[in-house]
Amino acid sequence: MRNPPALHVDLEYLRTILPPHTEEDYFEYLRNLDTGSVTLYAIDEGTVVFPKVPLMRIEGPLPIVQLLETTLLTLVNYASLVATNAARFRMAAGADKALLEFGLRRAQGPDGGLSASRYCYIGGFDGTSNVLAGKLFGIPVKGTHAHAFVNSFNGVEEIKNRKLKKANSDEELDFPDLTLSWLDKICPILGVLNSETNKGELAAFLSYGLAFPDSLLCLVDTYDVIRSGIPNFCAVAMALNDIGYRAVGVRLDSGDLAYLSVVVRKSFKKIAETNLTIVASNDINEDTIHSLNQQGHSIDSFGIGTHLVTCQKQPALGCVYKLVEVNKEPRIKLSEDVDKVTMPGCKEVYRLYGQDGNALVDLLQKPEEPAPMKGSRESKRAYVSPARVEALYKPYWRDGKICQYLPTLKELREKAQNSLRHIRTDHKRALNPTPYKVSVSDQLYYFIHKLWLVNAPIGELS
Amino acid sequence: MRNPPALHVDLEYLRTILPPHTEEDYFEYLRNLDTGSVTLYAIDEGTVVFPKVPLMRIEGPLPIVQLLETTLLTLVNYASLVATNAARFRMAAGADKALLEFGLRRAQGPDGGLSASRYCYIGGFDGTSNVLAGKLFGIPVKGTHAHAFVNSFNGVEEIKNRKLKKANSDEELDFPDLTLSWLDKICPILGVLNSETNKGELAAFLSYGLAFPDSLLCLVDTYDVIRSGIPNFCAVAMALNDIGYRAVGVRLDSGDLAYLSVVVRKSFKKIAETNLTIVASNDINEDTIHSLNQQGHSIDSFGIGTHLVTCQKQPALGCVYKLVEVNKEPRIKLSEDVDKVTMPGCKEVYRLYGQDGNALVDLLQKPEEPAPMKGSRESKRAYVSPARVEALYKPYWRDGKICQYLPTLKELREKAQNSLRHIRTDHKRALNPTPYKVSVSDQLYYFIHKLWLVNAPIGELS
Repeated sequence: MRNPPALHVDLEYLRTILPPHTEEDYFEYLRNLDTGSVTLYAIDEGTVVFPKVPLMRIEGPLPIVQLLETTLLTLVNYASLVATNAARFRMAAGADKALLEFGLRRAQGPDGGLSASRYCYIGGFDGTSNVLAGKLFGIPVKGTHAHAFVNSFNGVEEIKNRKLKKANSDEELDFPDLTLSWLDKICPILGVLNSETNKGELAAFLSYGLAFPDSLLCLVDTYDVIRSGIPNFCAVAMALNDIGYRAVGVRLDSGDLAYLSVVVRKSFKKIAETNLTIVASNDINEDTIHSLNQQGHSIDSFGIGTHLVTCQKQPALGCVYKLVEVNKEPRIKLSEDVDKVTMPGCKEVYRLYGQDGNALVDLLQKPEEPAPMKGSRESKRAYVSPARVEALYKPYWRDGKICQYLPTLKELREKAQNSLRHIRTDHKRALNPTPYKVSVSDQLYYFIHKLWLVNAPIGELS
Repeated sequence: MRNPPALHVDLEYLRTILPPHTEEDYFEYLRNLDTGSVTLYAIDEGTVVFPKVPLMRIEGPLPIVQLLETTLLTLVNYASLVATNAARFRMAAGADKALLEFGLRRAQGPDGGLSASRYCYIGGFDGTSNVLAGKLFGIPVKGTHAHAFVNSFNGVEEIKNRKLKKANSDEELDFPDLTLSWLDKICPILGVLNSETNKGELAAFLSYGLAFPDSLLCLVDTYDVIRSGIPNFCAVAMALNDIGYRAVGVRLDSGDLAYLSVVVRKSFKKIAETNLTIVASNDINEDTIHSLNQQGHSIDSFGIGTHLVTCQKQPALGCVYKLVEVNKEPRIKLSEDVDKVTMPGCKEVYRLYGQDGNALVDLLQKPEEPAPMKGSRESKRAYVSPARVEALYKPYWRDGKICQYLPTLKELREKAQNSLRHIRTDHKRALNPTPYKVSVSDQLYYFIHKLWLVNAPIGELS
């Protein structure tokens, strides 16, 4: 039930923008409106879906379901787009890489950014740099520091609180001194001059280590990755190691990520046997990851922003909401554009799986047809022998109540990966994927065909 | 001041995601944080801006201005992108066309859609179909009906309340009968058969006319624009005209918009001398409008959604937030990528205008330099003789208070068009525009050059 004063304000606003002749009964109708008589069927969130298969079926009084059009499209379009985009990044990067969403600043404002964080996580990302998304949705929060943090230091002498306690005792020591002595040892090993390393950058890494000795993850490209960032980081990491802590790793945010990641990994190995993490960011898109895979790289984790929250290949998903039946009578929209013609009538959708567990085809039927059976099935236009049949539509809203269990974000994330696992590899490949088959039952086929003939303008019948 | 219980919840959440060693003082610091010591200078909203000129200058304690990074970028990036996109559509369509924003369903969720409506209006659009944006921001709300409204009718017999009052008397008449008699007269004039027109569509238009006799705007492409939509619309419009009302026009949402709009205009002229509006929608982008202009068309108004709220040519704007000075000392970030190198130090920006009122150049200076003067000005690297000089930065936030008048949306919209009028046409053309000149003063140039030398890694000095 809407808050009555807010509803009143809304109706008074509507009065100002509708023509003065608008009937009073209309406002009374709006005042008493509710969705108790609406039933909404949907394919489970997190399921892989294909073009031509409606994601939802909405039944109810025409004016009410018409009012839901923009609401449902607004909630479904971007969510589906960004979850799909995230899932494509996951497929490109592989299951063993960490994927972090860094997109807030490039999203469509604060709430666009929150939607992005939420649906990127469902699509297969591991964490977000959006702290509010972490708080609201329980998504793991990950990030490093800013370049400005490095820029803000001039030299080690600026560090005032120099003492750090050993990990497993109360003994304190001068952490900058220990680090500087490591820098002296490390520079010759890495073939750089101590004087080349930027001491402001070293001071920034030292401050980070002093505050968070267990989670040192440094951005190493503020000045020069190889001649400054890496020796500085290694010195702080080795000093931490001396007193019982473990550094996490580094982030590369510019330059040739394939080349730099390999050089950085070699540098780490020259100093010590470690499992340090290399995070890469910098305008990464899906093609960048495919290209990095081809070249070879040593990146463990990708931070992705712009091209995740705004999908370059398709900046907006074009789902539409169409009337397909009124009072049991099918409705068809012909349109001047053939691809805008709708598939009329109420439909059920089944996903048919083969012996290997992979999805074979999505089948649209008339609701009165019996569901396809496990085992052999034949028709004039398709032949499949499903080992398993899944009804894709479930009632989610009926009699004014949610009527399915609503999974947690984490469960949805697992569901999405699980759904993807049941899709054949050739349907999922980045380049020229095999189209997945979406079929209609014979009965639905002839039914639609007949409607087309009846509704087609006479001039086009010849 | 933050709401204390909400602040407490935020801090408790932060405690769960920060390392257990995090100092208690840090949380105490966050608890007492405010922006009273921050000063924010910005170029006025609605001003045309160019690459390399910072949009804002933020001064204050480093940790606080660092916390503002993502907030400011999130609020500025998408707003600037979509306002710019809207302004480009306005330039393409010309001042005399109506531009309506129809983007909510393709935006990044509900709030992304609200931001889109707001900044499209500032960029030069006339209205939005987003009713909430109308209510919250006072933007004119415009729209037509859905295809589903047309699909939902089968025939004229479904209309129950057939009576319509004349505009200037209480006399009522049977509106469907009057319309059907007009349809008989109109079909031969338009060269179509009465039997070809879809009577469900006619019933929909009739219902619209009965409810809103002063604002009939019909979507005419549900079945066939020329053989059904236009004759049906004209019949209802002429019937309304008979009894003292004026129809508004039609919307085309598919097909060849240039061709159809011309045919529709000719059809209107065959029936009566009218000023009917032709609205076009259907996946229109900036290039579509340029192409329609080249072909010739009769469209008065464009409804634009997807390609307005998600900008195809540049799906995200890449503004960044960089540290340029600490305690009066300049800061520079070199980076592995030359275009990520920042311009160090605090700067002032002036826009210099010529005798014709057009902007000549934006000039960046050191704050201690005197502002450029009206009249002649010479330097080793640039020569301009400004007739007018405008200081672009104004303080917007200082001592914990907003310190400029904040214009209304309508004023911002006028400001944007006015700012565009002062930019030369060759800078604004869609194809190969002349780059606008952004220059630095001699003093700033040598200052930056010196810093580059000091900060460049030794190995790159040769």
